[in-house]
Amino acid sequence: MCGIAGVWNVDDSYNILHDILLGLQHRGQESTGIVIEGFKFLKMQGLVSQVLTKENYINGRSGIGHVRYSTFGENSEIQPLMGLTSKGKFAIAHNGNIPDAKIRMKSLVEKGAVFNTTIDSEVFLHYISLAPYSDPKLSIQWSLSRIPGAYSIVILTDSMLIAARDSYGFRPLFYGKFKGGFVVSSEDSALTALGAKEITEIVPGEMVIFSDMGLDKVKFATTKMRFCAFEYIYFSRPDSNFYYGNVHKARFKMGGILYRESQMTGDIVIPILDSGFSGALGFSLASKIPIELGLMRNRYLGRSFIMPENREEIIKRKLIPIPQVVKNKEVIVIDDSIVRGTTMKQIVKMLRESGAKKVKVGIHSPPVIGPCPYGIDTSRKNELIANQKEIEEIIKEINADELYYLSIDGLKEAIGGDKLCLGCLNLNYPI
Amino acid sequence: MCGIAGVWNVDDSYNILHDILLGLQHRGQESTGIVIEGFKFLKMQGLVSQVLTKENYINGRSGIGHVRYSTFGENSEIQPLMGLTSKGKFAIAHNGNIPDAKIRMKSLVEKGAVFNTTIDSEVFLHYISLAPYSDPKLSIQWSLSRIPGAYSIVILTDSMLIAARDSYGFRPLFYGKFKGGFVVSSEDSALTALGAKEITEIVPGEMVIFSDMGLDKVKFATTKMRFCAFEYIYFSRPDSNFYYGNVHKARFKMGGILYRESQMTGDIVIPILDSGFSGALGFSLASKIPIELGLMRNRYLGRSFIMPENREEIIKRKLIPIPQVVKNKEVIVIDDSIVRGTTMKQIVKMLRESGAKKVKVGIHSPPVIGPCPYGIDTSRKNELIANQKEIEEIIKEINADELYYLSIDGLKEAIGGDKLCLGCLNLNYPI
Amino acid sequence: MCGIAGVWNVDDSYNILHDILLGLQHRGQESTGIVIEGFKFLKMQGLVSQVLTKENYINGRSGIGHVRYSTFGENSEIQPLMGLTSKGKFAIAHNGNIPDAKIRMKSLVEKGAVFNTTIDSEVFLHYISLAPYSDPKLSIQWSLSRIPGAYSIVILTDSMLIAARDSYGFRPLFYGKFKGGFVVSSEDSALTALGAKEITEIVPGEMVIFSDMGLDKVKFATTKMRFCAFEYIYFSRPDSNFYYGNVHKARFKMGGILYRESQMTGDIVIPILDSGFSGALGFSLASKIPIELGLMRNRYLGRSFIMPENREEIIKRKLIPIPQVVKNKEVIVIDDSIVRGTTMKQIVKMLRESGAKKVKVGIHSPPVIGPCPYGIDTSRKNELIANQKEIEEIIKEINADELYYLSIDGLKEAIGGDKLCLGCLNLNYPI
Amino acid sequence: MCGIAGVWNVDDSYNILHDILLGLQHRGQESTGIVIEGFKFLKMQGLVSQVLTKENYINGRSGIGHVRYSTFGENSEIQPLMGLTSKGKFAIAHNGNIPDAKIRMKSLVEKGAVFNTTIDSEVFLHYISLAPYSDPKLSIQWSLSRIPGAYSIVILTDSMLIAARDSYGFRPLFYGKFKGGFVVSSEDSALTALGAKEITEIVPGEMVIFSDMGLDKVKFATTKMRFCAFEYIYFSRPDSNFYYGNVHKARFKMGGILYRESQMTGDIVIPILDSGFSGALGFSLASKIPIELGLMRNRYLGRSFIMPENREEIIKRKLIPIPQVVKNKEVIVIDDSIVRGTTMKQIVKMLRESGAKKVKVGIHSPPVIGPCPYGIDTSRKNELIANQKEIEEIIKEINADELYYLSIDGLKEAIGGDKLCLGCLNLNYPI
Repeated sequence: MCGIAGVWNVDDSYNILHDILLGLQHRGQESTGIVIEGFKFLKMQGLVSQVLTKENYINGRSGIGHVRYSTFGENSEIQPLMGLTSKGKFAIAHNGNIPDAKIRMKSLVEKGAVFNTTIDSEVFLHYISLAPYSDPKLSIQWSLSRIPGAYSIVILTDSMLIAARDSYGFRPLFYGKFKGGFVVSSEDSALTALGAKEITEIVPGEMVIFSDMGLDKVKFATTKMRFCAFEYIYFSRPDSNFYYGNVHKARFKMGGILYRESQMTGDIVIPILDSGFSGALGFSLASKIPIELGLMRNRYLGRSFIMPENREEIIKRKLIPIPQVVKNKEVIVIDDSIVRGTTMKQIVKMLRESGAKKVKVGIHSPPVIGPCPYGIDTSRKNELIANQKEIEEIIKEINADELYYLSIDGLKEAIGGDKLCLGCLNLNYPI
Repeated sequence: MCGIAGVWNVDDSYNILHDILLGLQHRGQESTGIVIEGFKFLKMQGLVSQVLTKENYINGRSGIGHVRYSTFGENSEIQPLMGLTSKGKFAIAHNGNIPDAKIRMKSLVEKGAVFNTTIDSEVFLHYISLAPYSDPKLSIQWSLSRIPGAYSIVILTDSMLIAARDSYGFRPLFYGKFKGGFVVSSEDSALTALGAKEITEIVPGEMVIFSDMGLDKVKFATTKMRFCAFEYIYFSRPDSNFYYGNVHKARFKMGGILYRESQMTGDIVIPILDSGFSGALGFSLASKIPIELGLMRNRYLGRSFIMPENREEIIKRKLIPIPQVVKNKEVIVIDDSIVRGTTMKQIVKMLRESGAKKVKVGIHSPPVIGPCPYGIDTSRKNELIANQKEIEEIIKEINADELYYLSIDGLKEAIGGDKLCLGCLNLNYPI
Repeated sequence: MCGIAGVWNVDDSYNILHDILLGLQHRGQESTGIVIEGFKFLKMQGLVSQVLTKENYINGRSGIGHVRYSTFGENSEIQPLMGLTSKGKFAIAHNGNIPDAKIRMKSLVEKGAVFNTTIDSEVFLHYISLAPYSDPKLSIQWSLSRIPGAYSIVILTDSMLIAARDSYGFRPLFYGKFKGGFVVSSEDSALTALGAKEITEIVPGEMVIFSDMGLDKVKFATTKMRFCAFEYIYFSRPDSNFYYGNVHKARFKMGGILYRESQMTGDIVIPILDSGFSGALGFSLASKIPIELGLMRNRYLGRSFIMPENREEIIKRKLIPIPQVVKNKEVIVIDDSIVRGTTMKQIVKMLRESGAKKVKVGIHSPPVIGPCPYGIDTSRKNELIANQKEIEEIIKEINADELYYLSIDGLKEAIGGDKLCLGCLNLNYPI
Repeated sequence: MCGIAGVWNVDDSYNILHDILLGLQHRGQESTGIVIEGFKFLKMQGLVSQVLTKENYINGRSGIGHVRYSTFGENSEIQPLMGLTSKGKFAIAHNGNIPDAKIRMKSLVEKGAVFNTTIDSEVFLHYISLAPYSDPKLSIQWSLSRIPGAYSIVILTDSMLIAARDSYGFRPLFYGKFKGGFVVSSEDSALTALGAKEITEIVPGEMVIFSDMGLDKVKFATTKMRFCAFEYIYFSRPDSNFYYGNVHKARFKMGGILYRESQMTGDIVIPILDSGFSGALGFSLASKIPIELGLMRNRYLGRSFIMPENREEIIKRKLIPIPQVVKNKEVIVIDDSIVRGTTMKQIVKMLRESGAKKVKVGIHSPPVIGPCPYGIDTSRKNELIANQKEIEEIIKEINADELYYLSIDGLKEAIGGDKLCLGCLNLNYPI
C-alpha cells in the first residue's frame, strides 16, 4: 500500500510533491520520501506534514516522491531508492509488489550483484544496469518489459522523468500538465486538487517519458488490463476516478446492489465511518431505510503512546456508539469489507451493549478469501476470516444476526466492467 | 474553549486523566496540562497523545487536567495553575471565562497581590488566600460565591478534589464513580467511555467535594440555570448528554425543524463533515431529500508547516468536493453555524466550480450576532457576519442561491427547553 | 550556583544575552532562561546553545538572563521570574540564596499572598508589591534594604534595568558599557569577551539603575564586604577578576603556598583537570617538581543516557590515567577542594592501579567543614568528609599516602585580603 | 578521520559498542552508526551519547560500529554499510581512504554493478560478491588482497566478525578478550578502559577472524608497515599505545627535542589545550621555562546555533587569553601542528592584544606540505600554509616573533622508529 508522485520541469517541486503526497496520504502513513533534481533526498518515518517541512526544503525543478504504509524501522528502507549504474544515476519509487522479486534478487546476487536494501525496486536498478543498451531510456524499457508486474513506477534520471504501469495495470497512475511542466500521481484526485490540466491515466504496459523534449510515450508490453478491484472497494479516495469511473459512485452503487441482492430489513442504516459511508448512502437510498449516526468516529486519536495494544480497545476508542440512536433498533451496519473479522466483532458487541435489538451486517464487497501478492497488505491467508470460515460460521464468530456480502457479479456491475483483478475474491490471480 | 478532568482516589490517575482528556480533545487541541497528587505536574503545548506519553508518566491516585484551544506560546500559561496560599497548596483548572477577571485582578494587585500569569483562574487562588476562613473548603466556597461566572472548575488540594459549576451553569461538568474512587469530566461521554458508573451532572451553584470521607455536596449560590446553547449546536461531542438530553438527537431535531421552517427544495443534501452531519441527517429524513457525499473530508491534514496561511486554501484542502456527485444538481448544504462566513463562502465557490446548478445553505442554528463572554472564542463582534449584515447581504457575500437559519424558537424546541444562555444569538447576556 | 546577565538599550539583546550567558555557562548547565523587552520570555532546560537558538529568537533592546545548576524538572521553576504587581510588571533573576526565604514566604502567605513558584526571587516580587511607595524604583530599593542577603540580582521593568548586590557582596556582579548601552554579568570575563568597556564591579549594598536617563547608583544598605572565597577557589573562571584580583593568579598562589606549607616531595605533579590546573602550576613552580599528564580528561563525555549511574564509574570515564606516566612514580595529585571525598578516592584508586608507587594529595584550599547557605550547593553537612572526619581518617578513607590542605591564612595570603566569606571553611557565617 | 569498533560473542553488545565508540569519539563527532547481530542497525548524525541512547537499544551478542568526522547530510551515507551478496549478508565499517576508490567503482559499474552510496567501503562489498569463491572468508581475503590500502576494517557476517589492516597499516586496529568473547577498536585505550584483556595490535596485511571456532588469523598480504605519523602527532588519544609506544610519551619527547633543536628562550611556555599539552610539558621540562595557563579553553562551547561562522570568532570563543599571565612576557606557544595557519594567526593576535612582549611559536612536528590520501582530512594542497610559504613568510603571515618546527629526524627519534608514513611531511607517499 503506497502512493507515488512525480514532478518535471516546474519551479518549487518540493512543495508540489508535498501537495500531491498529502493528497495520497491515505495510501500510506508510515514513511515519506522524496528525491529532488540532483539526487538530493529526504527520507523519514512520519506523515507528509512531519517530513516535508519548511526546515527540510530542497530546491529543484523535478523530483519523485513516495508514501508508504509500513517500513521496517529504518530510513534506508524508505523509497525512493537511488543507485549509480553503468547508465548513470537513477532514483526509483514504486507502488505494488513484484511477486517474484526474491527469486530475481537471488539470481542477480548469484551473478555478483550487491543488494543494499530489501525493497523490490532495487531489482529495477540492477536490471537497468545490466540491460544490453548504453541508453538509459532503452535500458529502462528493457527492464520494465522483463518484469510482468505488479507495479506503477516513477523513475528520475538527470535528464528525464519516467512514469510507467505494468501490463496488467494493477495499480493506478496518472499524469497531467501543470505550470508548463508535468506532474504524476497514483490517483487523479491529488492532481485535480493541485489544479493540473489534461489529467490522463497511463495505459498499462506503457511508459511515459518527460524530458526537455516534452512528453513521449513508449509501449513496452501488451496491455492486459486487470485493475485492482480493491482500489474501488476500499483503498482509493472517494473523489478519485479510474478507467471505469468515479470511486464514490462505484461504492454508492455497491451499496445499492447489496440491498437489491440481500433485501435486508431494519430500522436504521449505520455506516462505518469513513470507509463504509459511500456504500451506506447507496444502501439507504435503495432500501429507503434512513441512515443514522449510530457510531461516531474519534478524530483526535492519533498515535497515543498509552494506547492499549489490544485491537478491541483501539476500535472502542476510534468508533463510539451513540446509545440514544441505537437503543431498541434493528440496525444495519454497512462497511466496505471484512478482513480478519476482529473489528466487526467488536462493533457488533458495542452496538448490542448500546441496546440494539438486532445487529445486521452488510458488506458491499464479496468475501476476501485470498491474500494480495500485488501490493495490498491485507493479511496472511489463515488470518482471512472468509478463507477459514463459511458465512454461517462468520455470523456466529462476529455475533451478528445477519450477514450479507455483495456478489462478484454485483461488484462488477457496480464498477461497470470486468477487466479487474479479483484474485483476493476468487483466487484467479493474473500472474 | 477548554475541557477539564479530575480523578480522586483511583490507582494510575495519570492514565485515567489521559483517557478523559482524550475524550475531551475536541474541546481544545493546543495545550495539555495535568497536576497529580503531591502537586507534580506536566504542562506542554500539544495534543493529549503527545503530552501524556509513557515517558512522562507521573504516579499518583488523584489529579486534575486541562485541554485548551489556544495558548499564548508559553508553558507557564497552561492550566492547571498552582499556588501556595495561606490555606495550603491548590491546583486549579477551569473551563469558561470570568468576564470581569481583569477588574478583579487590578483590585487584588492594588492590595499588594502579585499575579504570575494572565489566566483567569489565578483570581480564584488569590480569593482563596484572602478568604476570611482558615479552612480550605470554606475558603473555596467563599471564593466561588463571590464570582458569578462563567466557570466549571476542578480544584485539587492535598486532601480533596473539588468540582464546581457557577450558578448559571454555562459550561457542563459531570462526575461518576470509578474503581472505588471518583472521576470528573466536562462531558459525560468521556466518563461513559471510561466505564464510570452513576454519572451525574453537577448542579449549577453547587460544589462537589471528594475526599477520604467520600462525596459531599455544598450549595454556594442559587441555581439560575443558563446552559450554553452552543454546546448543543456545535461544541460538544454528539454522544454527550446534558440536562435536556443527547447532543446528536438535538442536532438531528434542529435539522428536521430547519426543514419544517424553511421548506427548502433540492436534489441532494450535503453535510459539512463532521459538524453538520447530525443536522443533515435530520433535515434529510424530514425533507425526503437524499443525503450525499458532495464534500469529503481530508483526515490526514494535520499541521502541515507548508500549509498555506490563507484560510481559503486551508478549507480547500480540508473539504474536497466530488464533482460526479454535485454536477448539475441543486444542492442543499447543511452546517451547524456560520461565524465569519469565510468557510461557507469557499464551500459555495467549490461546489459551483464542481458543477452544482444551485447551492442552497441551511444552518441548523440562529444567526450569531454577538460575541461570547463566557468562554467560547467565536470572534470579535465586527467579525461576525450576521452582526454586520442582513440575510440578503450574507447570501450575496457567500454567493449562495438561498440561505436559511433555524429560528430561536426552533432551537429551543429542538433542545427541549429554554433555560439556556442565548447571549450570542439574542444579545440577552445573563451576567 | 547560577549566573545572571542583563542588557540595556542595545540592539539584538537576544544575541548579547546568548554571549554573556555562554561565558557564564560554567556557573550552571541545567537550565537557561531570558526575559526580553516587553516581557517576552524563553525558559527551558538545557545549555545556552540548546535554548537560545536561532529558531527561538526574540527581538528587543533590553533583557535579563539566567543559567542554573539544577532545576526541579519544570520550566515554570526556571528563572527569570515574572510578575504583575501594583507597581507594574517585573522580571527578576538572581544568583545566591536567601537563607530565610522560607520564613519570609510563610509570613507573606499568611497575609494573603499567593506563591506560584518555590524560587527565592518570588519573595522580592511580593516585597516590591507591598512596598509603601508607588514608584517602582523606590519599591525595589525598599525591598532590597529589607533582605540582608545573599543575592546578586538583575531586575527588568518596562522602563529600566536594575542590577544590585546585597550588602555582603557574597556573589559577584559587574556592568560595562557596550554599543551605547549597558551590559551586566556575574563575572567580568564574559563582558571582556564581548568587548564591553569601563567594566565595573558593583559595590555591595548598591543598586545600579540603567534607564533612558543613563546610569544612576543608589546605596540601599551599608557595605559589609564578605566575598565568597569559593569563587576564588573553584567556582569562577580563571580569567575572571574580582575585588582582590585575578582568579587564576590567586589559585596559582594557593598552589605555591600549599607547597611552602606542606613541603611535599614526589616525582611528578598531576593536576586534576580542569579545576586543579592553576594550583598545580603554582605548586610545580614552587616545588620544582615537574608537572605531568597523569590523568587526561575525556572531553566528549556529555550526558550519555547509558552512562552508569554510580559516581565511581562516571569519574572513571571522565578522568583517565596514563600508566606510562604514572608507573613506579611518587605522584602528587593537586586539586582545588575535597567535598565528599568520593572523587578523590576513585582517583587515588585509579592511580594505584596504574602503577603509582605513592599517591600524595594536595588540596589548595582548607577543609570544607560546613554547608553554604548563600547559594553554592556543596552538600549537606553530614556528607562533607572534612566535617565528619579528621585528616588521618580522610587519608585512610581515600587511601592516599599523604594529604595536605592549604591553611586559612595561606588562602587569605593567596587571595590577597580577608574581607571574605569563609563560612564553609571556619563556620563563621556572616548572616 | 574515523573510529571503528567490533564485538563478538558478548552479551549486551550495544552497550559495549557504546563504550568503545565513546572512547573513540575524538576520531569523529559528526555521525554514529552500528550494526548488531541479525543486521539490525542504527545510523544517525550526532555524538555517541546522542545516538546510542537507552531508547534506541538493540539486543544482540555481536556487532560493529563507526564514528565519523563528516557526513554528507544523509543517514544512508553513514557507516557501517550493509549489503546482500552472493556470499550472504555483510556489514562493513572502515577507517581510512581507498585512494583509487573512484576508479574501482567506475570499473565495477561498467560491469553492471549498482552503487547505492558514495562510501569507499561499498567497493569491498562488490569485491566480496564477485570474488571467485563461494566461501565468505575466502572471498573477504581475496578482496582485501586486491586493495592495497588505506584501511583498517571490521566486517560482520552472520557467523563471524573479521578485523583487518591493510599491508601498510596506515590506521591502527586492536583486539582484546572480553567476558568470554572479543572486542575490536581503532585504539587500545578504548579497550583498556572497558577492562579488556590481552589487547593485541593487528599486524598489517593480516585479518583476524572471530567465530564460534574462536580466533583465527590469516595473512592476506605482505606486511609493509607504514604507520601514520600523525596518529602520534595529533590524532590519537594521549593514553593510546601503538607499535612504537605511548602517544603522550612520544609527544612529550617531541616537545623536548623541539627545545633541543630550537633553543628557544622566553619567560613562559603556553600550551594550546588540549592538543599541545603533552608537547609543552616536554618542552618546559627540557628548557626549564615554566608552563603557564596563558590561554584557557571554553569547555561549554558546543554547537551554538548563533555561533559566528567566521573562524577567527570561533577560536576567540574557544581559547581565551588570561592577560594577567601574559602581560609583558616573552611567551612560547607550543602546539602540535599548523595546517592552514588561521588558528595560530588568531592566537598570536590575541596574545599580543593581551600584552605579550614577544610571541614565539614552537610546533612539535615538521611542516605539513602535502595532503593525506589515506583518511586524514587535513586540507587541500593549496590551503596548506607550509606548502605555499617559506618559514620566513609564515612568520610574517601569523605575525609571530619566531617560529620553529620539529625536524623529521627529531620526529622519528621521538616516536622511536621510522616505519612510518610521512607522506604529508616529505611527499614520500607509500601508495
